[in-house]
Amino acid sequence: MKILVLNGPNLNLLGSRQPDIYGATTLAEIEASTAEVARALALETEWRQSNHEGELVDLIHATRDGTGGIVMNAGAYTHTSVALRDAVAAVGTPVVEVHMSNIHAREEFRHVSLLAPAAIGQIVGFGPASYALGLRAIATHLTGRL
Amino acid sequence: MKILVLNGPNLNLLGSRQPDIYGATTLAEIEASTAEVARALALETEWRQSNHEGELVDLIHATRDGTGGIVMNAGAYTHTSVALRDAVAAVGTPVVEVHMSNIHAREEFRHVSLLAPAAIGQIVGFGPASYALGLRAIATHLTGRL
Amino acid sequence: MKILVLNGPNLNLLGSRQPDIYGATTLAEIEASTAEVARALALETEWRQSNHEGELVDLIHATRDGTGGIVMNAGAYTHTSVALRDAVAAVGTPVVEVHMSNIHAREEFRHVSLLAPAAIGQIVGFGPASYALGLRAIATHLTGRL
Amino acid sequence: MKILVLNGPNLNLLGSRQPDIYGATTLAEIEASTAEVARALALETEWRQSNHEGELVDLIHATRDGTGGIVMNAGAYTHTSVALRDAVAAVGTPVVEVHMSNIHAREEFRHVSLLAPAAIGQIVGFGPASYALGLRAIATHLTGRL
Amino acid sequence: MKILVLNGPNLNLLGSRQPDIYGATTLAEIEASTAEVARALALETEWRQSNHEGELVDLIHATRDGTGGIVMNAGAYTHTSVALRDAVAAVGTPVVEVHMSNIHAREEFRHVSLLAPAAIGQIVGFGPASYALGLRAIATHLTGRL
Amino acid sequence: MKILVLNGPNLNLLGSRQPDIYGATTLAEIEASTAEVARALALETEWRQSNHEGELVDLIHATRDGTGGIVMNAGAYTHTSVALRDAVAAVGTPVVEVHMSNIHAREEFRHVSLLAPAAIGQIVGFGPASYALGLRAIATHLTGRL
Amino acid sequence: MKILVLNGPNLNLLGSRQPDIYGATTLAEIEASTAEVARALALETEWRQSNHEGELVDLIHATRDGTGGIVMNAGAYTHTSVALRDAVAAVGTPVVEVHMSNIHAREEFRHVSLLAPAAIGQIVGFGPASYALGLRAIATHLTGRL
Amino acid sequence: MKILVLNGPNLNLLGSRQPDIYGATTLAEIEASTAEVARALALETEWRQSNHEGELVDLIHATRDGTGGIVMNAGAYTHTSVALRDAVAAVGTPVVEVHMSNIHAREEFRHVSLLAPAAIGQIVGFGPASYALGLRAIATHLTGRL
Amino acid sequence: MKILVLNGPNLNLLGSRQPDIYGATTLAEIEASTAEVARALALETEWRQSNHEGELVDLIHATRDGTGGIVMNAGAYTHTSVALRDAVAAVGTPVVEVHMSNIHAREEFRHVSLLAPAAIGQIVGFGPASYALGLRAIATHLTGRL
Amino acid sequence: MKILVLNGPNLNLLGSRQPDIYGATTLAEIEASTAEVARALALETEWRQSNHEGELVDLIHATRDGTGGIVMNAGAYTHTSVALRDAVAAVGTPVVEVHMSNIHAREEFRHVSLLAPAAIGQIVGFGPASYALGLRAIATHLTGRL
Amino acid sequence: MKILVLNGPNLNLLGSRQPDIYGATTLAEIEASTAEVARALALETEWRQSNHEGELVDLIHATRDGTGGIVMNAGAYTHTSVALRDAVAAVGTPVVEVHMSNIHAREEFRHVSLLAPAAIGQIVGFGPASYALGLRAIATHLTGRL
Amino acid sequence: MKILVLNGPNLNLLGSRQPDIYGATTLAEIEASTAEVARALALETEWRQSNHEGELVDLIHATRDGTGGIVMNAGAYTHTSVALRDAVAAVGTPVVEVHMSNIHAREEFRHVSLLAPAAIGQIVGFGPASYALGLRAIATHLTGRL
Repeated sequence: MKILVLNGPNLNLLGSRQPDIYGATTLAEIEASTAEVARALALETEWRQSNHEGELVDLIHATRDGTGGIVMNAGAYTHTSVALRDAVAAVGTPVVEVHMSNIHAREEFRHVSLLAPAAIGQIVGFGPASYALGLRAIATHLTGRL
Repeated sequence: MKILVLNGPNLNLLGSRQPDIYGATTLAEIEASTAEVARALALETEWRQSNHEGELVDLIHATRDGTGGIVMNAGAYTHTSVALRDAVAAVGTPVVEVHMSNIHAREEFRHVSLLAPAAIGQIVGFGPASYALGLRAIATHLTGRL
Repeated sequence: MKILVLNGPNLNLLGSRQPDIYGATTLAEIEASTAEVARALALETEWRQSNHEGELVDLIHATRDGTGGIVMNAGAYTHTSVALRDAVAAVGTPVVEVHMSNIHAREEFRHVSLLAPAAIGQIVGFGPASYALGLRAIATHLTGRL
Repeated sequence: MKILVLNGPNLNLLGSRQPDIYGATTLAEIEASTAEVARALALETEWRQSNHEGELVDLIHATRDGTGGIVMNAGAYTHTSVALRDAVAAVGTPVVEVHMSNIHAREEFRHVSLLAPAAIGQIVGFGPASYALGLRAIATHLTGRL
Repeated sequence: MKILVLNGPNLNLLGSRQPDIYGATTLAEIEASTAEVARALALETEWRQSNHEGELVDLIHATRDGTGGIVMNAGAYTHTSVALRDAVAAVGTPVVEVHMSNIHAREEFRHVSLLAPAAIGQIVGFGPASYALGLRAIATHLTGRL
Repeated sequence: MKILVLNGPNLNLLGSRQPDIYGATTLAEIEASTAEVARALALETEWRQSNHEGELVDLIHATRDGTGGIVMNAGAYTHTSVALRDAVAAVGTPVVEVHMSNIHAREEFRHVSLLAPAAIGQIVGFGPASYALGLRAIATHLTGRL
Repeated sequence: MKILVLNGPNLNLLGSRQPDIYGATTLAEIEASTAEVARALALETEWRQSNHEGELVDLIHATRDGTGGIVMNAGAYTHTSVALRDAVAAVGTPVVEVHMSNIHAREEFRHVSLLAPAAIGQIVGFGPASYALGLRAIATHLTGRL
Repeated sequence: MKILVLNGPNLNLLGSRQPDIYGATTLAEIEASTAEVARALALETEWRQSNHEGELVDLIHATRDGTGGIVMNAGAYTHTSVALRDAVAAVGTPVVEVHMSNIHAREEFRHVSLLAPAAIGQIVGFGPASYALGLRAIATHLTGRL
Repeated sequence: MKILVLNGPNLNLLGSRQPDIYGATTLAEIEASTAEVARALALETEWRQSNHEGELVDLIHATRDGTGGIVMNAGAYTHTSVALRDAVAAVGTPVVEVHMSNIHAREEFRHVSLLAPAAIGQIVGFGPASYALGLRAIATHLTGRL
Repeated sequence: MKILVLNGPNLNLLGSRQPDIYGATTLAEIEASTAEVARALALETEWRQSNHEGELVDLIHATRDGTGGIVMNAGAYTHTSVALRDAVAAVGTPVVEVHMSNIHAREEFRHVSLLAPAAIGQIVGFGPASYALGLRAIATHLTGRL
Repeated sequence: MKILVLNGPNLNLLGSRQPDIYGATTLAEIEASTAEVARALALETEWRQSNHEGELVDLIHATRDGTGGIVMNAGAYTHTSVALRDAVAAVGTPVVEVHMSNIHAREEFRHVSLLAPAAIGQIVGFGPASYALGLRAIATHLTGRL
Repeated sequence: MKILVLNGPNLNLLGSRQPDIYGATTLAEIEASTAEVARALALETEWRQSNHEGELVDLIHATRDGTGGIVMNAGAYTHTSVALRDAVAAVGTPVVEVHMSNIHAREEFRHVSLLAPAAIGQIVGFGPASYALGLRAIATHLTGRL
């Protein structure tokens, strides 16, 4: 089963970006450390990142090729993009929304996710582990196994 | 490591309560099905449920006995209880907030969690699997292992 | 047919509590004066009062024993308790919400009832008679007779 | 004792109007089925309906002829008419506000009644029975008998 | 003259709870250090604490036994409990609301006290001394002496 | 230790100003009746009043001469003056905010104090005794003695 | 010069309507007592009253017959009628808005006048004298004489 | 197929009413110029205008005589009338809402249409052509032909 | 009878200040042109202007010398000064609030007057004539003569 | 005359995207079915779609090549893009905004169009026919012919 | 060309006032360090500071003596003073608003400047350099030279 | 020292875009006229413009190559882009936000800048000169020289 792990704006700077909030691990390191979890779940993951809202919409659309699910950290677009929400609703691919930081303990505008109502669920606040938990969540959703 | 799995009001009715929203599984069945995950994570879990806000506060306080963490579905009190939020902040025991339904796809008053800023993170929308994911999240938080 | 007449916080002080708003009749006197209406409607009523939100939730849950309906004056919890609303939605027992004072002619925070969307209907402002009207309303709901 | 049963806009279409919300009973049928309750309460009822806010104001004014009370379903004007509220306050005739549907379980703008603070009380959500309950409420208000 | 010093949720953890906000003094130590002030004012104090909203309501009700006043730190319930406010209004016992931290310098939801309009007055921000000032305030209220 | 007792607009009219709200005692009488408390606390008090926001700012600035603290009833400026709040923050002199009336039981715009977050604490609602309590509060703050 | 004095809903009940707010003078008595002022200003006045929003719109439209101005007390429609505002803007006849009671000292919804931005000005709070002042205002507007 | 073209308050003044906003064409001239479009669409149109909300409700009710659709410019009532919205929902006749001016480029209170959710759709801003487009829209809705 | 005509900030610049809004007449010219009206009403007027909020408070206080009333254009302080409102309430001298421009047709923050609830009434929008109307209003208030 | 028919995010998925809301017709099919209307209006249409906000801005800019008008369905960007609104205002090309679904009968955030104030007008809710109506509207705007 | 550099409340305390926000430089030191920039721009500057809103209004009025412009740091009055805004609009002297701290990164009430709409522009956040930049901005505005 | 002058959407149309707001100068002409200021400040400037939010994020990211600062006019994205704000916070390159028009004197949605809290400061309203002032501000920030 192929899973798209989709990352939004500024996540390419993980590791150097505000490390007090986002930690010192790069996105590539997160991908590497999560690989074992993916294997255990028999998931093939494709990691993509873009700073462009339109490109993220395109990548969501492309999951109609049979991709089984999306683990999505939309970054800043979480709070401003109706286009991404509509894209998720349009393709029907199940989406698990993840965030590394606890968005509810930050500025008020980060408390609201426009994406969340179109996703299956949300995993927030566990740093790099949010991705691993996201993969487990999508796997459970697809297979029914905890 | 002992983990308290704490459940708030009306969760004792899981299985019969609005099954279109909460599913047909009882809380006992969720506990049973989650047992294997707990064992694999070397977690000893104690499941408690109460409809009384004060009793939930008391149970959070009791985790100062060395309980390593709390997986907490505060149910309706999620949206109204400052007392539970203060209790979490007071004891310092790490808390993972979980919800079975996707609260962001329901009535607007359910979108806001007063608890969330005091918790490590939040897992929302995966039905019974939210508990298993919550246990994994607390285990990762305590051990650093994904 | 058994009906639970459920009373929330501070209603045990009826008679002495702010008599300009709530009148000089005690809850026991209301129960007594309503008895004839109950008999005429062939309803067996059980009157309960608690200042504890959790206990009120428990009492609502207990109506799954075959109680036919609830006439409920949730007092102050009307305006703050999602737990009671969820309890009503969870058990499926039909609920008629009653208030003695006209909550719409008082402070603004009393104008909103969190319970009302989960109840069949609401009867507001008729003093002790709100209970008798509530019994009639539940009887009509259950029997179809005016 | 004469009671005016006053009905606002679109209530002349009861029976065919959105039957999932308002039921299949016409206003004339409600009047007929409520007649017995009125007789039992020794009330003479006059049923009026108008789609015109000004006419409803005129009809409220006319109750200064000695009409003992008003059971009033102001329909859509409930939520928008200060004129009706002022009319009720101006004439001093006691008013019981009734609604067939549970306005608190519908669109948010229907949750607020501009009339309610000027009425004795409100009866909401019992379908055609709201009228019978309204008559009982006005009778109790006038006679002191439950 | 007997005075109830009533403490709400999480105040049993004073001393260990968020000491940067609430200080390192326990509730028992505050009671002890305040004893001299009480004696000087000829007040007999009874200190109670509960995490249960309903129990706090019950304790307020119990002051109808002739207790002269209440010094009340309702903790988190300050901001959410209409039941406590109604209890204060119902019993008529004079209440001085106290808070140890300056609630106006904290999160916005702590700026509003639902209790305050029903109390005589409010003393906010003086740490353990808020209790001593509260006793002096109630004494002045009862005796007219500064 | 010198303490400035600073009074804002319209407090020069105490005694004749809305006596139902503010009582019949003049500011000079309050100063006189509080003198004994000040002596007992070994505080030298200087009482000032001005209707001019700028003059109040100047007087706060002047406390950098070694004045130990301010007991401040900013009157109407409490609710509108950022300048006074900034003055308090600028000089660092500890300030206890006092009000004679219970501002939380009056018009909604009086519920918010712009000053409060810059003060140590707030004493509200005890009539002339608010000043005496304010002096005790500042003394405790400066000496650590209850 | 002909002036329309236009009165909205419930003003036909002046004299008996809430005399604590509106006084004990009837609309006819106000017309009579204002006659001398009108004569002194060389104004011919036509007094009209209607409870019907549409009729008030019609009467405003009719001023295109050469009526020089309108003194208008729109009553409750002041706060709810965009139609009246648009009518005023459509005909171009100068309008002086008057109210007998001080609408700013009453319920909050009465503080806003939808009409005011389309009128020349507003006269509020002087009881029957508001009409005389309104006539003087329209006369000054038309003649330039104070 | 008969279509009602229904016009609300102040539209009888088109041509002379604020021509910078509404143009210099009268309603009769719009009817005349639209006649050809109606013929081409095989629609029989009946043009009605009223300044009375209640009469507009009555006219909507009357379309239950087999009228195929309504093109409706509710004027000022667009923004204030729940009664018209309920009338549209009650009769089931398809409604196309039209406005001559671009309501979204005017005062904020004109941006919201209470009618729109009950209509098929909305055509806004094209001057007299809004009516012709409205007829085309209703024709397409009824026939499926563009 | 002596009347204070009190003018707030920037009104000393009348004549040159934004003449499209405030006209080309100076405050002295308004005083002169209003003199005859004052004489006819047997009022002795004292015209004062200040840009200082505190000075305006002082001047209001000074009317306790037997001044019969105040005609007050508080300018910008209308919208921001609780101190002026409290001063008016404190002295009890009757106040007629006047504005030259139609504040309801300008920026939204000018629509609200903090003063209005403490005044007898308000006269808005008649340019220099607002002062003459204000004098007439205060004269009527004091003498009962139109 | 060349007209750009510009489509925003997710409209490339028309036909498969949430067919209960958007229907089963693809964008290409809509273009084809609208061709005849375009021909009849002597309009040359160029249909473009992009999921990229910046690309849509670029395409609007490109209409300065002499394109006569734009029929624009901005999809999700309707509700979030100031950039598109500014682009429309910057180029001066007349724009008709169209939507297939009735945005006023959907989620509240879809009720507001940031684009609308910069467009000539808006056509909402007619499914594929919204495009044909949009072409007619732009043609009328450019030629004056209905 | 003479420029008034006008400073509002608490700016006389620069250097000692909250140095983490405002730095350790006094206002006199800023004036000195800015002198060279002023000379280079051929501007004669007059530096004034007042804690009195009315005095600031007076100083703005005084610029009608031929002062070419104002660089104005209104301090706390920025957020509360309509009087200053009206003064700026009244005199017509061009004003550049400056702030030393980044008001947008502080408390929410500091984000809004009532002055800004009446000024040419705003310079925010550059510490003492905000004054030098302000002088350059006013010079460019007056001379057209960068 | 290299400085990026970054321009957002629609700024490529400067010169022809709404010249009453933005003036008749093109972006290239601004760059040219600012060159001398840049030289005097020993700054090497690179001017970039894009209509694509993602590309602007990429360009901000690219300043980690040693670019000393950014002068940024984010145009419409100022008010809607959390992604740009996060990008600024992520790279740590100092940013001076500039706007040509006075955004505080335009539509309300332009008053809020999401960028501002992440920037050093903001320069608003000086037309093309805003860029020159921005360069000076960044130079002062980097060198400490006015």
